Amino acid sequence: MNDMTNKWIGQRTIRPDGAEKVTGRAAYAADTTMPGMIWGKVLRSPHAHAVIRSIDTAKAEALPGVKAVVTRADIVDFPLDKPVMLGIQDMRWMSRNVMAREKALFHGHPVAAVAATSESIAAEALRLIEVEYEVLPHVIEIDDALRPDAPILHDFLRFEGKPSNIAGKLEHKLGNIEAGFAEADVVIERSFTTRPVHQGYIEPHACLVSVAADGKTTIWSSSQGQFMVRAMTALLTGLPQSDIRAIPAEIGGGFGGKTIIYLEPLATLLSKKSGRPVKMVMSREEVMRASGPTSGSKSTVKIGATRDGRLVAAQGTFWLQAGALPGSPIRGAAGCGFAPYTIPNVVATGFDVVSNRSKVAAYRAPGAPIGAYAVECVIDEVAEALGMDPLELRLKNAARQGTKAAHGPVYPRIGFMETIEAAQAHPHYNTPLGEAPAGRLRGRGVASGFWFNAGGESSAQVNITEDGNVVVTTGHPDIGGSRASIANITAELLGIDYKRVSVLIGDTATIGYSNLTGGSRVLFASAMVVTQSAEKVITSLKERAAKIWKIDPEAVAWENGEARPVSENAGRFPPLSLAELAARATETGGPIGAGVQLNTTGAEGGFATHLCDVEVDVDLGIVRVLRYTSFQDVGRAVHPSYVEGQMQGGAAQGIGWALNEEYIYDRQGRVENAGFLDYRMPVCSDLPMLDAVMIEVPNPKHPQGVRGVGEVPLVPPLAAVANAVHDALGKRFYALPMSPPRVLERLEG
Amino acid sequence: MNDMTNKWIGQRTIRPDGAEKVTGRAAYAADTTMPGMIWGKVLRSPHAHAVIRSIDTAKAEALPGVKAVVTRADIVDFPLDKPVMLGIQDMRWMSRNVMAREKALFHGHPVAAVAATSESIAAEALRLIEVEYEVLPHVIEIDDALRPDAPILHDFLRFEGKPSNIAGKLEHKLGNIEAGFAEADVVIERSFTTRPVHQGYIEPHACLVSVAADGKTTIWSSSQGQFMVRAMTALLTGLPQSDIRAIPAEIGGGFGGKTIIYLEPLATLLSKKSGRPVKMVMSREEVMRASGPTSGSKSTVKIGATRDGRLVAAQGTFWLQAGALPGSPIRGAAGCGFAPYTIPNVVATGFDVVSNRSKVAAYRAPGAPIGAYAVECVIDEVAEALGMDPLELRLKNAARQGTKAAHGPVYPRIGFMETIEAAQAHPHYNTPLGEAPAGRLRGRGVASGFWFNAGGESSAQVNITEDGNVVVTTGHPDIGGSRASIANITAELLGIDYKRVSVLIGDTATIGYSNLTGGSRVLFASAMVVTQSAEKVITSLKERAAKIWKIDPEAVAWENGEARPVSENAGRFPPLSLAELAARATETGGPIGAGVQLNTTGAEGGFATHLCDVEVDVDLGIVRVLRYTSFQDVGRAVHPSYVEGQMQGGAAQGIGWALNEEYIYDRQGRVENAGFLDYRMPVCSDLPMLDAVMIEVPNPKHPQGVRGVGEVPLVPPLAAVANAVHDALGKRFYALPMSPPRVLERLEG
Repeated sequence: MNDMTNKWIGQRTIRPDGAEKVTGRAAYAADTTMPGMIWGKVLRSPHAHAVIRSIDTAKAEALPGVKAVVTRADIVDFPLDKPVMLGIQDMRWMSRNVMAREKALFHGHPVAAVAATSESIAAEALRLIEVEYEVLPHVIEIDDALRPDAPILHDFLRFEGKPSNIAGKLEHKLGNIEAGFAEADVVIERSFTTRPVHQGYIEPHACLVSVAADGKTTIWSSSQGQFMVRAMTALLTGLPQSDIRAIPAEIGGGFGGKTIIYLEPLATLLSKKSGRPVKMVMSREEVMRASGPTSGSKSTVKIGATRDGRLVAAQGTFWLQAGALPGSPIRGAAGCGFAPYTIPNVVATGFDVVSNRSKVAAYRAPGAPIGAYAVECVIDEVAEALGMDPLELRLKNAARQGTKAAHGPVYPRIGFMETIEAAQAHPHYNTPLGEAPAGRLRGRGVASGFWFNAGGESSAQVNITEDGNVVVTTGHPDIGGSRASIANITAELLGIDYKRVSVLIGDTATIGYSNLTGGSRVLFASAMVVTQSAEKVITSLKERAAKIWKIDPEAVAWENGEARPVSENAGRFPPLSLAELAARATETGGPIGAGVQLNTTGAEGGFATHLCDVEVDVDLGIVRVLRYTSFQDVGRAVHPSYVEGQMQGGAAQGIGWALNEEYIYDRQGRVENAGFLDYRMPVCSDLPMLDAVMIEVPNPKHPQGVRGVGEVPLVPPLAAVANAVHDALGKRFYALPMSPPRVLERLEG
Repeated sequence: MNDMTNKWIGQRTIRPDGAEKVTGRAAYAADTTMPGMIWGKVLRSPHAHAVIRSIDTAKAEALPGVKAVVTRADIVDFPLDKPVMLGIQDMRWMSRNVMAREKALFHGHPVAAVAATSESIAAEALRLIEVEYEVLPHVIEIDDALRPDAPILHDFLRFEGKPSNIAGKLEHKLGNIEAGFAEADVVIERSFTTRPVHQGYIEPHACLVSVAADGKTTIWSSSQGQFMVRAMTALLTGLPQSDIRAIPAEIGGGFGGKTIIYLEPLATLLSKKSGRPVKMVMSREEVMRASGPTSGSKSTVKIGATRDGRLVAAQGTFWLQAGALPGSPIRGAAGCGFAPYTIPNVVATGFDVVSNRSKVAAYRAPGAPIGAYAVECVIDEVAEALGMDPLELRLKNAARQGTKAAHGPVYPRIGFMETIEAAQAHPHYNTPLGEAPAGRLRGRGVASGFWFNAGGESSAQVNITEDGNVVVTTGHPDIGGSRASIANITAELLGIDYKRVSVLIGDTATIGYSNLTGGSRVLFASAMVVTQSAEKVITSLKERAAKIWKIDPEAVAWENGEARPVSENAGRFPPLSLAELAARATETGGPIGAGVQLNTTGAEGGFATHLCDVEVDVDLGIVRVLRYTSFQDVGRAVHPSYVEGQMQGGAAQGIGWALNEEYIYDRQGRVENAGFLDYRMPVCSDLPMLDAVMIEVPNPKHPQGVRGVGEVPLVPPLAAVANAVHDALGKRFYALPMSPPRVLERLEG
């Protein structure tokens, strides 16, 4: 596999879902309809923080056309005394996120939902619901939430025995941190802040749910995991999972934000009450106000190095915003920041902080960009203090096979050093920045990054059609081209043209349990189960050929899509093609197909190094990226276009995070820029071509050498851009975004 | 298995699809819609027999709103020199059935199809298609088709070297027929005719097809087999099967008539041409004119018996109408007629005869009722001639374990004798007919019947949900309650409540190849693959418990939905429930589930004996069924309600066939009664409660003892009713239906 003999692995084949998508034929959740369908809408809190004294739905229920109303009384609650985990989500909080219980915790928090025969009637009904609020002081920012006199969001939360807005703490330790700093010749300590940013998926959350009279439920929805949809909906509505069929629609972007659900339990309860299928689609404003961004943060990072450039000690403290309910990605921030380096003494601490903002959701490599931003900016300062080239310092300390990481593992063969060496050798790094026009300054920055990557549960089924082609079913929504990659792998394994392979996504009824499309796990895990399934199919094909030839199955080889007799039988029988064997399936034992369900392991981490050139307009404060190159150990680029796409997309999102994206809150705790016009994500015209250099250090624990590639591209950009801006201006920024007003402020300061 | 310890097998559990169906929520093919969908309609031949000289679609294509037109030029044709078989269907004829090629062969034969933005535009476009016909003489009835000067439908058909309307012949032989008749003391020879009758499914044929720009095709349709839909559509359109996803909608009846397709290839070609999803729904009139009834027939049966009631020779010749294209069920007529009896000398011959009627399709036990009608009426006369009780004669000659049947097999353990003995012992047989009112006559008839039953390919997947419930997927449209039966079996095997089992029907992408819902094969075959899958799941569950307990998997038993340690470990560990093991699936090896794909064998035949009491109004000629009881060897009644339903439904359909159903043709070869008003099927008010007596002689070749039960109920009724009418009137009818005009004619004759 890991050689030049691959025919399909590594090819830029046409993606199987391409034609349906570009012609508008692909079915997204909002495209789905059912006879008798009605519309659901959510009433949202107008207050950032308020006790909900009472909810009177009588007038709404009396409105002609209204078929059902649900409130907190309808959602399953969980005892507060112990976690109810579904993956990394605690259902105690998920229940309150889907519908406010004791209090409305942020502006836009769902308070009730209505289903009616039209969207306008549903909207009118929302206005007829009478909610009695007791408005409370609210808190938006981390520093405010941590003040001793801060309004406390949750009476039931305790930190160090006291009511607090700190909902959790995590600490990684390695070596002896005091001894490490004592050994250092240079110690740099800095503090940073980042702002919550939204995943910015184009497709708002949407679902259509039909609950039959006996509780049998079908859910069409946009998500990163139909099994997550099934499990969460089951838990929040009280239905058994076996009564729910969750069908994954095509997904118009998720980036982690669709690893939890908002509408499905409400639509399910509304459908159950009304006896009608219920459709719910968020507006963009609802998406921006009430679906998860990633955390805002503040961090302090301190790194010590010896004069010869050896990193000997590192300490980081990361406070991450959870939004209104516990659960920020402190593991990503504290675990990933120092992970690219061999540092003998490390303490990394994360704090989970609640405030009156919408609850965060995962966003590509959750927490890791926050950790890397602080660490990689400090590394840059250490290099500056030592007078070393920043890539050289990174290379000298780069994690490698055998490095013990503070977050736990001892690394196997990894390709981090190769990413730095590739950057050093690349024309981008060796081309001078060139002279900037008048009034502008240019700079170059570098940064590296790490992401854990995940394995976990996946299922696959590989079936041979009666005409000798192949249908592969897996259980993960395809958000990054996984169908195309699976087609390449299957074609490779079976020795047939990739066009003869169709890859489809099963629903919860028709494929085995498959964990989320997330954690950069999908191709890693699904290629593994597809490979094992295909191998079983090949074994069966060889057995069938042996049966036809009346020889031992051991004496049959599978090559180039054909069974051939080997050893003393070679040449005795003409080869049997897949089509020929398929045509004779009935007589040789029945249908040909095999499935595998597995908890996969061996994903191993992903590493990247990014180069960024910027030009700063010192009059307008605008930072423009001139050139950007990502170097990433991609393990094996099964479908290079989609690996590059992941790298480019991560860079684009990181540049937005670094330069422009943030929520603007008013004094009442309401988001003022809940739309793509005022919430400024980078568009094509804001960016140069983003170059992607794939470095293939195959994962030794995977049959095709696959490593996760989807998340690490978003880890280095924040620091790469910040270091470039510093290089341009000679001044450092310790807060993101570096938007024009802040750049001007800093230049004037 | 075959004992009283079953908890769920044999229970009348609530059917899983019941609530959705009675509340109108279940999605049938005509309920499905897609954004951008347009409507397809078929232009049908106004002539019973005509050369199609030319088809000009220009005006239709020019009509605003018309998006595509297809004709014979668009359908894949196959060389005529050799069969292209898909199951029992020859695609050379299927291609011509879907769209007329050289000639229009019956009134209603498709000649072109149009897709337009509305149904009315499509209808208008049909009127704009200019077809130049050369009208030919036509032939409707068998006798006319066999005349030397008959119009010949197919130049390419030869019988005994000459152009003919005989399209095929089949012969079964056993022993020495001349010697057999020489031994007989009584020989009776009679000739019979039956009329074609329609399956009468409530739901007309319907489909929605979407072909994307790259050829990826999704078909929602009503059929008895999504894999048949995929395969036939692939063959007739030239698409590879792997590009087609055929999704089985709920089915509103099929009875064999949906084992072939009519609309799907047309909708596929229209969608491909137009770039739009295309929906096609037949009207009832189209169903009656152009979808398959079963064959009309003429038969001659001669049976010889010794004075002591031993059947020693039997000869039957069965001419069956194929409709316009070859392929009538001569195998069912010739194979099943004599199959219930131990007769040492048999010749059974079938002839396949074409004429200008719509091509026949399968109808429950295809051909067998025709064969049984003739044989069982002659047996009745033999009993009369011998002065024997007709059940006694049947019992004396009943096939049993070891009987060699003329159509091939030597029977294993079968339950035919038990059905006769049960009838003899039943109150129905022992209750006098009672006095008829004035002007009416009463009679009682008996008849038996046999159907082959089929095994064949099925696939299943049994998955455990994360909350410890069960989802079972199989590949057969559920037309007779198979989901309910599979739920019972799965609950039994896993030792859990049946409500914790959801049973779903997979589409062609998400379940392994599964042959048709037909041949009384579905529960037989799917229970087998579900059982093997469930056993694999239980093995996995025991291994996981062993892993948790750190003991040998051999030392774990699965009982009552729990893993328990056995032998020296018994009592050491508390049992682990399915829910507990499911919750720990990730740590013990990943998702829990298993699938099996198999070509099943061992279905064995099905036998039944029916009793029928009738009352004939001699003034009006109306025959009314007073009492009807079916006795059937059902193997194992996994869900008794649906076995009884099959028995009752078969009896009702057989009574309609015997008494009223027939097509009336005009002189131009056009059906005059193409609708449920004039084509007289029995409705509830026409029938008494139909009693069903299930006799369970478990099939030794099946894990639950299952035998097919769906078709044999339609085999005896024609003769049972005819024998009852004879008993009432003292006159025999040799032609069906025994409708009022014919009864009056016979009474007057």
